[in-house]
Amino acid sequence: MNYAIIFHTLGIVIDFSAAFMIPPFIVALLYGEADAKYFAMCFAAYAIIGTALGKIKPVSRKFYAKEGYIIVSLSWIILSAVGAMPFYLSGYIPSYIDALFEAVSGFTTTGASILTDVEALSHGMLFWRSFTHWIGGMGVLVFILAVLPLAGGENMHIMRAESPGPSVGKLVPKLRKTAFYLYAIYFSMTILQIVLLVINKMPIFDAVCISMGTAGTGGFGIKNDSMASYSVTINVIVTIFMLLFGVNFSFYFLILKRKFKDAFKMSEVICYFGIFAAVALLIAINIDTPERGFLLSLYDSAFAVSSVMTTTGYATADFNLWPEFSRSLLVMVMFFGACAGSTGGGIKISRIIIYVKSIIKEFSTLAHPRSVKIIKFDGKPVEKTVLNSALVFLAVYMFLFVVSVVLVSLDNFDLVTTFTAVAATFNNIGPGLGLVGPTGNFSAFSPFSKLVLIFDMLAGRLEIFPLLLLFTPSVWKKR
Amino acid sequence: MNYAIIFHTLGIVIDFSAAFMIPPFIVALLYGEADAKYFAMCFAAYAIIGTALGKIKPVSRKFYAKEGYIIVSLSWIILSAVGAMPFYLSGYIPSYIDALFEAVSGFTTTGASILTDVEALSHGMLFWRSFTHWIGGMGVLVFILAVLPLAGGENMHIMRAESPGPSVGKLVPKLRKTAFYLYAIYFSMTILQIVLLVINKMPIFDAVCISMGTAGTGGFGIKNDSMASYSVTINVIVTIFMLLFGVNFSFYFLILKRKFKDAFKMSEVICYFGIFAAVALLIAINIDTPERGFLLSLYDSAFAVSSVMTTTGYATADFNLWPEFSRSLLVMVMFFGACAGSTGGGIKISRIIIYVKSIIKEFSTLAHPRSVKIIKFDGKPVEKTVLNSALVFLAVYMFLFVVSVVLVSLDNFDLVTTFTAVAATFNNIGPGLGLVGPTGNFSAFSPFSKLVLIFDMLAGRLEIFPLLLLFTPSVWKKR
Repeated sequence: MNYAIIFHTLGIVIDFSAAFMIPPFIVALLYGEADAKYFAMCFAAYAIIGTALGKIKPVSRKFYAKEGYIIVSLSWIILSAVGAMPFYLSGYIPSYIDALFEAVSGFTTTGASILTDVEALSHGMLFWRSFTHWIGGMGVLVFILAVLPLAGGENMHIMRAESPGPSVGKLVPKLRKTAFYLYAIYFSMTILQIVLLVINKMPIFDAVCISMGTAGTGGFGIKNDSMASYSVTINVIVTIFMLLFGVNFSFYFLILKRKFKDAFKMSEVICYFGIFAAVALLIAINIDTPERGFLLSLYDSAFAVSSVMTTTGYATADFNLWPEFSRSLLVMVMFFGACAGSTGGGIKISRIIIYVKSIIKEFSTLAHPRSVKIIKFDGKPVEKTVLNSALVFLAVYMFLFVVSVVLVSLDNFDLVTTFTAVAATFNNIGPGLGLVGPTGNFSAFSPFSKLVLIFDMLAGRLEIFPLLLLFTPSVWKKR
Repeated sequence: MNYAIIFHTLGIVIDFSAAFMIPPFIVALLYGEADAKYFAMCFAAYAIIGTALGKIKPVSRKFYAKEGYIIVSLSWIILSAVGAMPFYLSGYIPSYIDALFEAVSGFTTTGASILTDVEALSHGMLFWRSFTHWIGGMGVLVFILAVLPLAGGENMHIMRAESPGPSVGKLVPKLRKTAFYLYAIYFSMTILQIVLLVINKMPIFDAVCISMGTAGTGGFGIKNDSMASYSVTINVIVTIFMLLFGVNFSFYFLILKRKFKDAFKMSEVICYFGIFAAVALLIAINIDTPERGFLLSLYDSAFAVSSVMTTTGYATADFNLWPEFSRSLLVMVMFFGACAGSTGGGIKISRIIIYVKSIIKEFSTLAHPRSVKIIKFDGKPVEKTVLNSALVFLAVYMFLFVVSVVLVSLDNFDLVTTFTAVAATFNNIGPGLGLVGPTGNFSAFSPFSKLVLIFDMLAGRLEIFPLLLLFTPSVWKKR
């Protein structure tokens, strides 16, 4: 284990955390809020600590897969720990565990909140909450890679650990360029959404915060009723942008490169929109009543499905009150999640496709033992190690899920609350059903359960393995 | 596809179904019950149909994997369809779908009932219900194999399709002898339990029915309160025998062969007892109150965990009323299930072990990409195809589970009822939580949901693939 390079990189991460304090500081200043001082304090402290740590010069700049995973996991933990400080110092969230919960929920783009009254927060704090979504969505280390030349050519491991999906490819041969392109697309789409929202008469502050939350598929609202008080037009725009940010960013890259044919043949994107359309339609039919009309039902349903499936978590209607068929369909898409290579969470559509193809292959092998069938994805054969990893991911996913439910059930809330609280945090969605439904929040859980859910949010965002590697003793041995 | 041999074998299965009518017929006669005539009618009808079908002589006696799976699936469907007739003809269960549900629940050793008052049934009918558990537990085709020389040497496919577990091995080189040994152990242990129960003052009829239900890990009770009215001694005996019938029968075979060392080194059996002990202890601590005393709590907990984990489903206490921690632990072991090669259902402990080992291997590969690690089970390396099948099994299991929950949720019962109804039938347990808890039953579901749950019970018992192969078009093509 190359400890020096880990400390060095963590120093850079803390430096960046300092920089992240600047935008909310400016917002607080603009609104003349006293909270500006907390952001300034954090900026100063992190700049000093980060620069000091960054001074550790690694003897060898080479690092391997495990260093990559460890750096990513530790970076996310540190980022959350320091990101929680403004909430804590300002006294808005008096308990540090609660503040940490909120920060982890922000960076992991979960959007689950322990706050009962978000409207009590200052503009600076509200901006900071939404900004954490935006940073976490595409990944903080990918961001650093995009602007800074880190160690040698081995950064692929970092990218692989931080970007969601079963197999992460480079868009272009140079990794730094890939990171740059990703952020360029991400930034442009966010700006586009802000502009569209402002044109449709959303206040600028609201438009910026909601767009950052949409882009990261986060879901922190700035009003107590989430999105319910905005106009239908605004919510339709948000519905569409939530869906767009759940698309594999390779799709946009292909579009930019004018490879339209390749883009529209991406099976993951086709399945993603197919599942969305089917589930939204089924729920609309299920919740429809003569007095409200089908179009309004479809509007509510499309918003909820888009919000849950992309793991954003904004709410217009209280889907906790919908019929069981709709509720169980929502729980189903909670697990499916969005596309790999998007900012969304969950198991990811590309893994679901791999599972379905593996199942079909198993049938054909059982029926015709001598036939040899190769699993293909978008025309290319899937490597055996990728297949196996995707299947093992399901096993470790189920394992962590079950353990989390058992641990959180110690709080003795009803099983639906416990089950969907874990589902909503592990899949980085935000709201679940029962007490943690769209109108509820996570404040009632014990500190122990909050720690379990914090772990689940991080594990969900980093797709489990990097985080669990921290607890694997053999990783820490010196070479 | 060799259709002739399929019809021929199904004829034999129907012949055996006729023979299965004889014991309940005798019981009904002994108690002077008019129901005897229904068993006689079924006997006559099945004997004629079975013999007629059996007359179809296959040109080639050879058959392959797919014929094996198809034969097993169709046999179970036919067995259930004809086994439902006594309930239906006698008028105890006026709806045929309900009667089919009860018969499928019996043969698949689920023990979920649509009856609200089992005590209204005659002795003949009660015996028939419990007898279906006993037949289904070890498998009807394994039974036929044990007493009858079926087609050539390819019967391994039948055994593999009907016996639970990721990889079915022969105990002895000759398959027929293996089947014979399995049934000899099964029969002897059942007799031993009956004797022990009768010695402890259980009425003989009760002892026979309850022992058959224990042996098959079925769970149909003969009283409305399941096992609650029996003495503590009787319930301790039942607890122990439920556990024993959940053990991989290879263990008993090794014991019989005096290979004690090999037997006690079986990792599946060790894990099985380890999980049982840990969960039973945790629940006992969780449900304990000063006034009832820890020993009584441990007694209730051990019974419930043994009942649920072995997928039997007998009940003494109403665990639906226990704290959420206990309830979620019970739901967890619902999914784990018993050992492979036992009469129990669920995912099976050996698969859980394979999953855990696959996860550990994935970690080690991530941390040390160049290291090569082979997964071993009881000292022997696990074949890659077995590993892959076990992982794909989890995927198809989750897939069917989710689809079932969504379909059953159309009935609009609460999510806990819907979720555990599917869990309890798919894992062949019987009772779940909520409306289908130990004091509830499955009568409230719509006919459509009952059909879904019937499918789940059969899919659970046959471990999904054989049943789903019925719906794979390529299987039905003529060679």
